[in-house]
Amino acid sequence: MGEALAVADAARQREVAQALRAFLPARSVLWEEEDTRPYECDGLTAYRQLPMVVALPETEDEVQRILRTCSALGVPVVPRGAGTGLSGGALPPGDGVLLSMAKFMRVVRLDPLARIAVVQPGVRNAAISDVAAAFGLYYAPDPSSQIACSIGGNVAENSGGVHCLKYGLTVHNVLKVRGFTIDGEPVSFGSEALDSPGYDLLALAIGSEGLLAVSTDITVKLLPRPQAARVVMASFDDVERAGDAVAAIIAAGIIPAGLEMMDKPATRAVEEFVHAGYDLDAAAILLCESDGTAEEVEDEIARVREVLAKAGATRTTVSRDEAERLRFWSGRKAAFPAVGRISPDYYCMDGTIPRRKLGEVLNFIAAMEKKHGLRCPNVFHAGDGNLHPLILFDANDADQLRRTEDFAAEVLEKCVAVGGTITGEHGVGVEKINQMCVQFRPAELELFHAVKRVFDPKGLLNPGKAVPTLARCAEFGRMHVHGGRLPHAELPRF
Amino acid sequence: MGEALAVADAARQREVAQALRAFLPARSVLWEEEDTRPYECDGLTAYRQLPMVVALPETEDEVQRILRTCSALGVPVVPRGAGTGLSGGALPPGDGVLLSMAKFMRVVRLDPLARIAVVQPGVRNAAISDVAAAFGLYYAPDPSSQIACSIGGNVAENSGGVHCLKYGLTVHNVLKVRGFTIDGEPVSFGSEALDSPGYDLLALAIGSEGLLAVSTDITVKLLPRPQAARVVMASFDDVERAGDAVAAIIAAGIIPAGLEMMDKPATRAVEEFVHAGYDLDAAAILLCESDGTAEEVEDEIARVREVLAKAGATRTTVSRDEAERLRFWSGRKAAFPAVGRISPDYYCMDGTIPRRKLGEVLNFIAAMEKKHGLRCPNVFHAGDGNLHPLILFDANDADQLRRTEDFAAEVLEKCVAVGGTITGEHGVGVEKINQMCVQFRPAELELFHAVKRVFDPKGLLNPGKAVPTLARCAEFGRMHVHGGRLPHAELPRF
Repeated sequence: MGEALAVADAARQREVAQALRAFLPARSVLWEEEDTRPYECDGLTAYRQLPMVVALPETEDEVQRILRTCSALGVPVVPRGAGTGLSGGALPPGDGVLLSMAKFMRVVRLDPLARIAVVQPGVRNAAISDVAAAFGLYYAPDPSSQIACSIGGNVAENSGGVHCLKYGLTVHNVLKVRGFTIDGEPVSFGSEALDSPGYDLLALAIGSEGLLAVSTDITVKLLPRPQAARVVMASFDDVERAGDAVAAIIAAGIIPAGLEMMDKPATRAVEEFVHAGYDLDAAAILLCESDGTAEEVEDEIARVREVLAKAGATRTTVSRDEAERLRFWSGRKAAFPAVGRISPDYYCMDGTIPRRKLGEVLNFIAAMEKKHGLRCPNVFHAGDGNLHPLILFDANDADQLRRTEDFAAEVLEKCVAVGGTITGEHGVGVEKINQMCVQFRPAELELFHAVKRVFDPKGLLNPGKAVPTLARCAEFGRMHVHGGRLPHAELPRF
Repeated sequence: MGEALAVADAARQREVAQALRAFLPARSVLWEEEDTRPYECDGLTAYRQLPMVVALPETEDEVQRILRTCSALGVPVVPRGAGTGLSGGALPPGDGVLLSMAKFMRVVRLDPLARIAVVQPGVRNAAISDVAAAFGLYYAPDPSSQIACSIGGNVAENSGGVHCLKYGLTVHNVLKVRGFTIDGEPVSFGSEALDSPGYDLLALAIGSEGLLAVSTDITVKLLPRPQAARVVMASFDDVERAGDAVAAIIAAGIIPAGLEMMDKPATRAVEEFVHAGYDLDAAAILLCESDGTAEEVEDEIARVREVLAKAGATRTTVSRDEAERLRFWSGRKAAFPAVGRISPDYYCMDGTIPRRKLGEVLNFIAAMEKKHGLRCPNVFHAGDGNLHPLILFDANDADQLRRTEDFAAEVLEKCVAVGGTITGEHGVGVEKINQMCVQFRPAELELFHAVKRVFDPKGLLNPGKAVPTLARCAEFGRMHVHGGRLPHAELPRF
């Protein structure tokens, strides 16, 4: 963490830059420090590294030639979208090329009858819905960063968002991805049709964190805009009771368009920042959205209120109009910057757990706050069991930093122990790579590496991210704790 | 086609059977012809082969030991569920072991709060919903064979069904699969949580037609049963107009629970068989189902009727009660056996096309009927663009058989040419393996083989299915016709 590392080898830098300049214009190859500095990190600012060279292709042909050139020279390549990722997936290589897809920002085709759009990877998530709005359509996955993040990055990380409880993650909303492997081989995964024969390489590519291929166009599904949407805000005087209410809503057979939870430290930070109208007396609040026809929304809201009342909500408020609905959500969407205002640094986790374990894990996090002496406001995609605890710390205080890392590791290991996973939507990147040793057995990690070798035998595409080497896990020294329910015997290796 | 081939090598048969009998009871290892005969084919009865040995394990440990034994002896293994598959995916190996998972028929766990069930692969699709009904839940994917087919087979083929337009294919409704590779290595793909870190091997395994691993338990999502459901039946005096009506419903922003189409030859065959109440004067009928709350269903049905009227429907009828709804569907679900009554044999295709191409492909099929002198009733999952043309022929007439195969090949190649795929839900198996050479470029097929080698380097699991060798494609001699829209240059190999 801290200051970005310098590029090691000037001669190698010159060699690579010159090889790229053979077919790229000057504006598309950067290597002076003042030009490469903006690429030293992504949304995980704690890790920084100056890239040796930055390439900014403008055509598919240029992408292919960059990849072929790097492959031939044995140069690592890290693809980058908008750089909003939270797990360091786009952390640049000090000895390689940062491949920015920022200039691929065209909507290639929109077919309102087939309800699809073909877009380039640099197109912003929210821009797709903006263009589709003219046809009464929208693109459903909505990460909090949707104004800034790119669809290429969404594909790499299999991004979610507030509405993915009802409408699915990126993998459920993308039909086709075209691109190139590190050797410049064209690949095309999925199709506009219902299903593709052969193995499902589309799903394999989505969420692969840029380790398998670089996308050059992406075909997304568009959905009809719901006629109506309203949100219920409910207060609870106990965090665990709020968690149980989430489970009760789902158990009642309701699939809300969104179901989010924030505890008091989170609402307080938010309220000072955006004035969303949250109940500051509540130990936790829930936001539960219904969408559909007006009748359907009325009906579902009534059922949700009934469940919430039984579950012990002390107060429920329903948004009266679209402005109020957006105001209720504005707080949730601004939670991360709001927390950034009250602490020099924060560490956002992304563990995902079975819904029935919400209460147990919330209590565990509270115990960890005491143990490590650090505050941790909680913001959840509660309906999905996707936690975003935000540990507050000061990165300039080495002891706080160490305690934060221990705190985070213990929470993620708890998530795995209750049958969950270490990441719901932010990806592993560099941030959670050690916890992968906890989530998976060595044989499973070896399977990932074998899949990687199919696409990238030399390991040049986004090296050191997402999947740890077995040697790294041995060094990390943590045993895998795979939920404890698997009857399969542990393998003797490792 | 025709008579099943005999097993070639008696000594090898003895060797393999004895190796399995070392740890399996006598009831679990079959090799006498009278015992293995029932396994000579699956639902694609045109292809038959006696298996060398049939193994019927009852525990995970037995599955693991069977696979280890076969791997050590270099014996091919073909996994089989209920044997209802339509593409020959479970066609046995004459020189190997048919691994029947029929005894794995336990529902291991049902968690109504998490809305999941953990089931063994031999559990019938419909049985899951039967068990879940006590909790107001059901399992959504509903292949026509759902009374008989097993969830293990559904996973292998990524099965769909009438309701997958709204609720997705098998891959969208399965959270986790546990099983073994051919070497007996335990594998566990996916998780009960929202998303899994690492590559999405779950999606890779689903639809892999038994080529990558053998499943031993499967965690499925359960959905709340809709409060109400009604179906609109609409008549059209022109098939192309009916196809355009399908596109118009989707374009109006409606996602029906099911949207099916049958042409006159199909309704006539069905009506004589099950008396579903279809309009026999219509050139084609549509069945369009809405589900949800009573209000939502009323609202959507009204919108559907409006679109249908504008699209030129000559008559629309809405089911008045549950009995009538089931009667309307009974004809569609009995379409295959109904067609079986009017022809000695039929060949069912499974091509999938963009919805806007429905009219064009329907006209093409009509032209092919004339060209090849064969009748072809049409039954479609129209909302998905998934066609099931049924070519009627007599397999004992060699010339009819040849014309049928040519007819089918031309239709599937047309599907690919308009941007579709050769299979929507039935899988490739042995039936459509030549058409894979049309759908994919050699470099893409090579990628599939490389993925296969990660899981099964010796190629022992379900060999000869789903993905053709490049040599086979060269022999088949058909060029790939990938939609014509890909700007990627064709690769020089092949």
